[in-house]
Amino acid sequence: MAIRGNMLIAQSGGPTAAINASLAGAVEFAMEREEIGQIYGAKNGVEGILQEHFVDLRPLLQTPEDFTRLVKTPAMALGSCRKRLSEQPNEEYEKLLDIFLRWEIRYFFYIGGNDSMDAVKKLSAYFSAKGEDIRVVGIPKTIDNDMACTDHTPGFGSAARYIAATMAEIACDSAIYTPASLTLVEIMGRNAGWLTAAAALARRPGWDAPHIICMPEIPFEEEKFLRRVRELQAEKKHLILAISEGIRYKDGTYVAAQSKLDAFGHRQLSGAAHTLGSLLLEEIGCKVRPIELNVLQRCSAHLSSETDLREAACIGKEAVSFALDGKTGVMATFIRESNNPYTIRYGYAEVEKVANVEHTVPVEWIDAEHMDIRQELIDYLTPLIQNPSDPESGLPTYFQIP
Amino acid sequence: MAIRGNMLIAQSGGPTAAINASLAGAVEFAMEREEIGQIYGAKNGVEGILQEHFVDLRPLLQTPEDFTRLVKTPAMALGSCRKRLSEQPNEEYEKLLDIFLRWEIRYFFYIGGNDSMDAVKKLSAYFSAKGEDIRVVGIPKTIDNDMACTDHTPGFGSAARYIAATMAEIACDSAIYTPASLTLVEIMGRNAGWLTAAAALARRPGWDAPHIICMPEIPFEEEKFLRRVRELQAEKKHLILAISEGIRYKDGTYVAAQSKLDAFGHRQLSGAAHTLGSLLLEEIGCKVRPIELNVLQRCSAHLSSETDLREAACIGKEAVSFALDGKTGVMATFIRESNNPYTIRYGYAEVEKVANVEHTVPVEWIDAEHMDIRQELIDYLTPLIQNPSDPESGLPTYFQIP
Repeated sequence: MAIRGNMLIAQSGGPTAAINASLAGAVEFAMEREEIGQIYGAKNGVEGILQEHFVDLRPLLQTPEDFTRLVKTPAMALGSCRKRLSEQPNEEYEKLLDIFLRWEIRYFFYIGGNDSMDAVKKLSAYFSAKGEDIRVVGIPKTIDNDMACTDHTPGFGSAARYIAATMAEIACDSAIYTPASLTLVEIMGRNAGWLTAAAALARRPGWDAPHIICMPEIPFEEEKFLRRVRELQAEKKHLILAISEGIRYKDGTYVAAQSKLDAFGHRQLSGAAHTLGSLLLEEIGCKVRPIELNVLQRCSAHLSSETDLREAACIGKEAVSFALDGKTGVMATFIRESNNPYTIRYGYAEVEKVANVEHTVPVEWIDAEHMDIRQELIDYLTPLIQNPSDPESGLPTYFQIP
Repeated sequence: MAIRGNMLIAQSGGPTAAINASLAGAVEFAMEREEIGQIYGAKNGVEGILQEHFVDLRPLLQTPEDFTRLVKTPAMALGSCRKRLSEQPNEEYEKLLDIFLRWEIRYFFYIGGNDSMDAVKKLSAYFSAKGEDIRVVGIPKTIDNDMACTDHTPGFGSAARYIAATMAEIACDSAIYTPASLTLVEIMGRNAGWLTAAAALARRPGWDAPHIICMPEIPFEEEKFLRRVRELQAEKKHLILAISEGIRYKDGTYVAAQSKLDAFGHRQLSGAAHTLGSLLLEEIGCKVRPIELNVLQRCSAHLSSETDLREAACIGKEAVSFALDGKTGVMATFIRESNNPYTIRYGYAEVEKVANVEHTVPVEWIDAEHMDIRQELIDYLTPLIQNPSDPESGLPTYFQIP
């Protein structure tokens, strides 16, 4: 099934701490396969392919140290883009086919999220329709963990580990003064609450933050929210709230967008945590601190999950193996076999089932009443942030004075 | 000179990643001294002393693991306060003396910043005036590095290391797309730019971010700032700007406070980075992203500097040693002997020279013209973020594709 030809690989969408691990895994495996000739990286995704902005990766990745360095580098070493191909094939498709044929590319790997899988779907269909055996395989990537057909996505575990570890430190920081306080931590994930839920991994004996978790899957109700905050304040002085950037009211409008500041065109100032912070300041009046984790949660390689990096490299390798096997129009996937011990195997899914689909948190894993998540979700998340080299996985048992 | 008596130790002011290391160092050393009987920790600084909210620390710190755990715990294990004693002795002073005598406290250590040294000054003077041999010694602490009479402050190195490492990751994150971008990172330090300057430690071969450093020591000039941004944009697409939260115009008003948003009482939304972000959006119009490092820069124990933690523990020990030696009304200090190899020794300073004084960055270490810092400042900062166990000290050489 394997054909001789060159390989092209590119990255697309938003950064993660693990996307270069997938690049490294795919290239390292491809280097050992005699069917594969040149190994090109395209700069800035499809945008760079159209400009034939290719880099020969073999000379750049010669030693194990080169690969290790690539694995530990956050964001896209090849750069990224946000380009979408047109719905119907047009002259761009023709140009891409012409470029692939001229460079004798028979294997194309695109590392990206839902939008990037749309390009995999369209290109693989177009190449097949033209009768060309050019294999196009997607490698999943997103901190949001919102891709269908895969148990989870590379990049998510590292962002989740960053969020849990940071949450634990914020809990220490917020508890030092005697007056009551409310700390709101805004977490990425426009439509899926996976990352916001990961804040709960900060909990361990003696540490119960975050006390409220607001996810986009559950419509936000202001009264219920204020009632819950007051309820918890009766029990404890310092509350930490994990707030998804994407929470919405029942009518679908974003909490973030409700800010009075919008009229001035300062939308970037009015995140969900700031909006709710203003509400709490007005209604409850104690010390309120909104914190946006911002891009730090997606690029903090120094807190990446070893499990995530290892899996990201493996799925890159598996994608190459599927392509050599004749697959095209598919995305490599994780299939979880068990939580404890945690075991996964690798598979693939038809990319049309993945492209443009958003996989959100199942509502049965959310405790909407208590604005919290259920144990099933904790069990799902826990293995993904593990670092075998650090038994505490970035969540040390802090010293506590009673 | 040593007298028999009990010891009291407390923490005050804002959190750092190293303040518990000083607590651990002081207690560990005191435990071995037979002059010292009970070792009490006061909860929430002077506030807790007035309520006799004391904890017996000996049973809590029994094993080396207990101490290690305390050293690695961010923020104040004993809690903190923002309380100031009145300028003239009043009934609170009398109450404090009464409490010290009743608990037979002869040694009191207060770990804190400029404001906390004010309490050391006032209490030591009051006790002496009353003819009581109660030794009051300050242990410096602040991420801001703005204390007089000491080369630097415990807690600063860890915050500086966090800022440098995070800056390096943000530089990767911001460079992935082809359109130009401006990323503004807001860094703590209301009057002193030490921490903002530490952003420059992210620079290493192949990585030149941050490209602009705006410090509170230099009056902010809007036109000059815009000119410099345009100048740099002619050379590179993605600029990273390190912005102190405390930058001010020539007339002394804060840039942060200039925000149009203030009228709504949303002052927490209008940090310097957001204000300048809006300005750049309006004047230059490319993609602008403001990032506030917020409390993460002061509590991120996971990125603490080993040098900082070691020194913080040692200075705690030295403070106890000075008190046993008969000193009171002093603060333990670092005296730098050389940058390379980096060596320091420990000393002490009269606390009246420290209390309420702010030590800002010498202007001759700042390049006001290029909105940057000079090599002298880099040389001063570099040793403070070193981790002997990690030769790259949190600043790995990332993989770069030309």
